[in-house]
Amino acid sequence: MLDSAHAAVVQSFGIPERDRYQVVDVRESGQVIALDTGLGIDRSENLVIIEIVSRRRTVSQKQRLYELLAEHLHRDCGLDPDDLIVSIVENEDADWSFGRGRAQFLTGELA
Amino acid sequence: MLDSAHAAVVQSFGIPERDRYQVVDVRESGQVIALDTGLGIDRSENLVIIEIVSRRRTVSQKQRLYELLAEHLHRDCGLDPDDLIVSIVENEDADWSFGRGRAQFLTGELA
Amino acid sequence: MLDSAHAAVVQSFGIPERDRYQVVDVRESGQVIALDTGLGIDRSENLVIIEIVSRRRTVSQKQRLYELLAEHLHRDCGLDPDDLIVSIVENEDADWSFGRGRAQFLTGELA
Repeated sequence: MLDSAHAAVVQSFGIPERDRYQVVDVRESGQVIALDTGLGIDRSENLVIIEIVSRRRTVSQKQRLYELLAEHLHRDCGLDPDDLIVSIVENEDADWSFGRGRAQFLTGELA
Repeated sequence: MLDSAHAAVVQSFGIPERDRYQVVDVRESGQVIALDTGLGIDRSENLVIIEIVSRRRTVSQKQRLYELLAEHLHRDCGLDPDDLIVSIVENEDADWSFGRGRAQFLTGELA
Repeated sequence: MLDSAHAAVVQSFGIPERDRYQVVDVRESGQVIALDTGLGIDRSENLVIIEIVSRRRTVSQKQRLYELLAEHLHRDCGLDPDDLIVSIVENEDADWSFGRGRAQFLTGELA
């Protein structure tokens, strides 16, 4: 599932294959309440919530991401697209350090 | 507690009852350190930290939310208002997909 | 480790010692995938990911933070600087309530 989700991110955001940072938690159904804001979407016990923290992306990149995540996770893991919620929070170049105490988007190590 | 907190969000932000997405984690006291920035607030082992990711809300909506969360959780769960910390992170309409690979705030499915 | 990380935050952001709110989770190695965006950084099983939600800070405060976190955690805990990833998300004064149902950055209780 992590491979499948990452492939969708790479393809929609146009990032390098090794720009990959994923943390997964599995929760009991009692720990999660997800309704549907009246959209008529049913959730099962397989619900997946993907929270992404990212530099700025365009609206079309994000829409492509949602499409591809739904497609990939359905194709690769059998996940019902009704069971996929995605939320993005954006930050800035200065907000990332990938190691060694440096902000690699500022030092020029990353573009 | 989740019902009580959600009622405060619905009332302060004026959102639909079914606009409800909650994930709860219970942690050991050794996993959490919460001091008080010098405010003179004592924390107990019942401390609740609520992290909210939301579209833009006004300052007065947020202040009303904090008041109502403290009131409701005290009334419904006996939570001491000293044991309630709330933090909000805002994002945009394009940053949400509630299922089916679509960004429902952009497609017009949600207003 | 939490003491060491907090000291770095206090020193780089110039915040009060008691402005301290930390939650720690320990995860199995199978729950985390962290590559290197091509930077040539090797990760071990000791990898630490620090996620910070903060009011606005300057670019130089953030760069100082990354340096100090790497220094302190290496000195105090033996953490390899290759095993430290930091990500910041910023929010506003209205986005914090430290207790009692109030937004202390707005009420004047905190500056």
